[in-house]
Amino acid sequence: MKKHNFSAGPCILPPEVLLKASQAVVDLDNSGLSLIEISHRSKAFVDIMEKARALALELLGLEGKGYKALFLQGGASTQFLMVALNLLEKRAGYLNSGTWAAKSIKEAKIYDDIYEVASSKDANYNYIPKGYDIPSDYDYFHCTSNNTIFGTQMKAFPKCDIPLICDMSSDIFSRTLDFSQFDLIYAGAQKNMGPAGTTLVVIKEDVLGKVSRKIPSMMDYKVHLSKGSMFNTPPVFAVYTSMLTLEWLKNLGGIAAIEKENEKKARLMYSEIDLNPLFKGFATKEDRSEMNATFTLENENLKETFETMLKEAGINGLNGHRSVGGYRASMYNALPLDSVKVLVEVMSELESKA
Amino acid sequence: MKKHNFSAGPCILPPEVLLKASQAVVDLDNSGLSLIEISHRSKAFVDIMEKARALALELLGLEGKGYKALFLQGGASTQFLMVALNLLEKRAGYLNSGTWAAKSIKEAKIYDDIYEVASSKDANYNYIPKGYDIPSDYDYFHCTSNNTIFGTQMKAFPKCDIPLICDMSSDIFSRTLDFSQFDLIYAGAQKNMGPAGTTLVVIKEDVLGKVSRKIPSMMDYKVHLSKGSMFNTPPVFAVYTSMLTLEWLKNLGGIAAIEKENEKKARLMYSEIDLNPLFKGFATKEDRSEMNATFTLENENLKETFETMLKEAGINGLNGHRSVGGYRASMYNALPLDSVKVLVEVMSELESKA
Ligand SMILES: Cc1ncc(COP(=O)(O)O)c(C=O)c1O
Ligand SMILES: Cc1ncc(COP(=O)(O)O)c(C=O)c1O
Ligand SMILES: [Mg+2]
Ligand SMILES: [Mg+2]
Ligand SMILES: [Mg+2]
Ligand SMILES: [Mg+2]
Repeated sequence: MKKHNFSAGPCILPPEVLLKASQAVVDLDNSGLSLIEISHRSKAFVDIMEKARALALELLGLEGKGYKALFLQGGASTQFLMVALNLLEKRAGYLNSGTWAAKSIKEAKIYDDIYEVASSKDANYNYIPKGYDIPSDYDYFHCTSNNTIFGTQMKAFPKCDIPLICDMSSDIFSRTLDFSQFDLIYAGAQKNMGPAGTTLVVIKEDVLGKVSRKIPSMMDYKVHLSKGSMFNTPPVFAVYTSMLTLEWLKNLGGIAAIEKENEKKARLMYSEIDLNPLFKGFATKEDRSEMNATFTLENENLKETFETMLKEAGINGLNGHRSVGGYRASMYNALPLDSVKVLVEVMSELESKA
Repeated sequence: MKKHNFSAGPCILPPEVLLKASQAVVDLDNSGLSLIEISHRSKAFVDIMEKARALALELLGLEGKGYKALFLQGGASTQFLMVALNLLEKRAGYLNSGTWAAKSIKEAKIYDDIYEVASSKDANYNYIPKGYDIPSDYDYFHCTSNNTIFGTQMKAFPKCDIPLICDMSSDIFSRTLDFSQFDLIYAGAQKNMGPAGTTLVVIKEDVLGKVSRKIPSMMDYKVHLSKGSMFNTPPVFAVYTSMLTLEWLKNLGGIAAIEKENEKKARLMYSEIDLNPLFKGFATKEDRSEMNATFTLENENLKETFETMLKEAGINGLNGHRSVGGYRASMYNALPLDSVKVLVEVMSELESKA
């Protein structure tokens, strides 16, 4: 039985993408060679890389605006480090809105001063801090658009005169935004873009070259940019499958089209959480994430029944992260509305049983 | 037509591995979920990671000897950096035997003093330097077991009292060695182990913890070891496919069995290069690599004919690296002896035509 996959990441991808990626592992476009056996310097792979980079910019509306896209290795966690190495000279401002934000602060602190402009840690990160000031003499401001673990999402971004950096790992390509307000965006592929193993970095080139430290080659955005994202052997399968997913999104109508679907799924999910007396949402309502809905089951005695019902319905990956407990329904781009309907039915069936 | 794939990396993998990896992208072991859609914290994936780590140690004969295996991201190029960050306090010795060795030196120099114990750069790296001394008060000695671009291979390794570090990217799992002479071995997967996108690092744990600098989490071997190679989201497809390839090698009889095959392929290849008057080997005979045979066609006028014949025979990836020119036949573990036979036939057919 095909599952309803609510996993928080790695997570569901479009079935047609899985099929095409699977075929390419045996034979890429009837070339007689597997995708993973060819040289990354071959025309076939260079074309794939270039297409992936171009599609990322196109979908974000950043073509011809001074931005370049890179597909790097190391996960978003390596970006915590690369952002600081490439951009932090003296002091930077960070918004501490969740576990990943806190980790980005920890890594940057190795290199220089970090100022937490605001934090929601005291409330176990159940809301997005607002109303803070960002000093205009800082090197940059860093924030996390969607807090995967806690299920909160930034609905607006601060206007600021310094470079704006955003970790969009768990909501990139899910909603329309003016992406040109950001100077650097990064996102691990394994939510809305592809398999784990590559990280998209979109950089406005003019923010680079302003720090005095010597940057190791593999950590240097300029090095990767100068080599067309192929300074060393790229993670070919992850890049190819990301390219397929971006193509799928473009064919659907781009971010504006998927945003409508994502809104429908989130509305259905949160209305069940709110109306069903057995469940309670974790995140403050105004900051609720359209990607990850976090909620708890109020009556512990019903836990076993609920989880058996989930299993019988083929629902996978609903367990909450240990820092929040309860459940987390991750509703990434590729999750069909039908999967949310199945989950909501199970929740209301539990109510009728209770 | 299925090709004869002599690509230097990414390169040929066993057909049964490609098939199984391809199936897993659609459905992993009849779970109803794709390999690339499941949580890396799921039992299914944790089992895959643990199996890959255990197989690597088992095949190298390093079980129960104080070693641990990691599957990291970033390619071997990131290891140039991590080795220095984790082990270089004051001074290290490096053997400059090729382009990759030179790059490892360049990255390490950012952190501290590096002493090139010997170099073959003046002869365009066509041999392996020998007869050098390694000061016993250095932090470590670093060498490259196989120089992919130039087709040279170390047949012996220096006895030394300091930690011995080896980049085995292009010949790991290809020949029997006493692997316990090394304290740290690393290898990008994309030659003998799997697809690009993961790097195997095998570490004798007691060499760690001796430098004073603060190491960023993603660059810290201790952090990765403490998290079972899952500090952050691992590159699941690359790890799974590497696991399949290691399993394939174990079922064949391990390194000792494949070594015999590799010797047959290399013998056939080099005897054609030597006996055929049209071709000339690049590397000094005693240092010839069993993985990458580099050679030139002496008569430029025959180039077009030769390359047409190669194409007609379905031979792929034979072009030499630009720093050497000519041709490079990479004969990694998964390349069948038959492919070498086909290549050798083309070469001797050229001779009969000429
Ligand atoms: C918002 C956010 N940032 C960073 C990360 C870390 O990503 P990676 O595991 O690729 O290092 C995650 C992982 O889930 C995330 O959700
Ligand atoms: C011996 C050796 N070391 C290092 C590298 C660099 O590996 P990567 O591209 O994974 O960074 C290569 C690549 O071919 C290599 O052959
Ligand atoms: Mg701005
Ligand atoms: Mg409720
Ligand atoms: Mg030793
Ligand atoms: Mg000859």
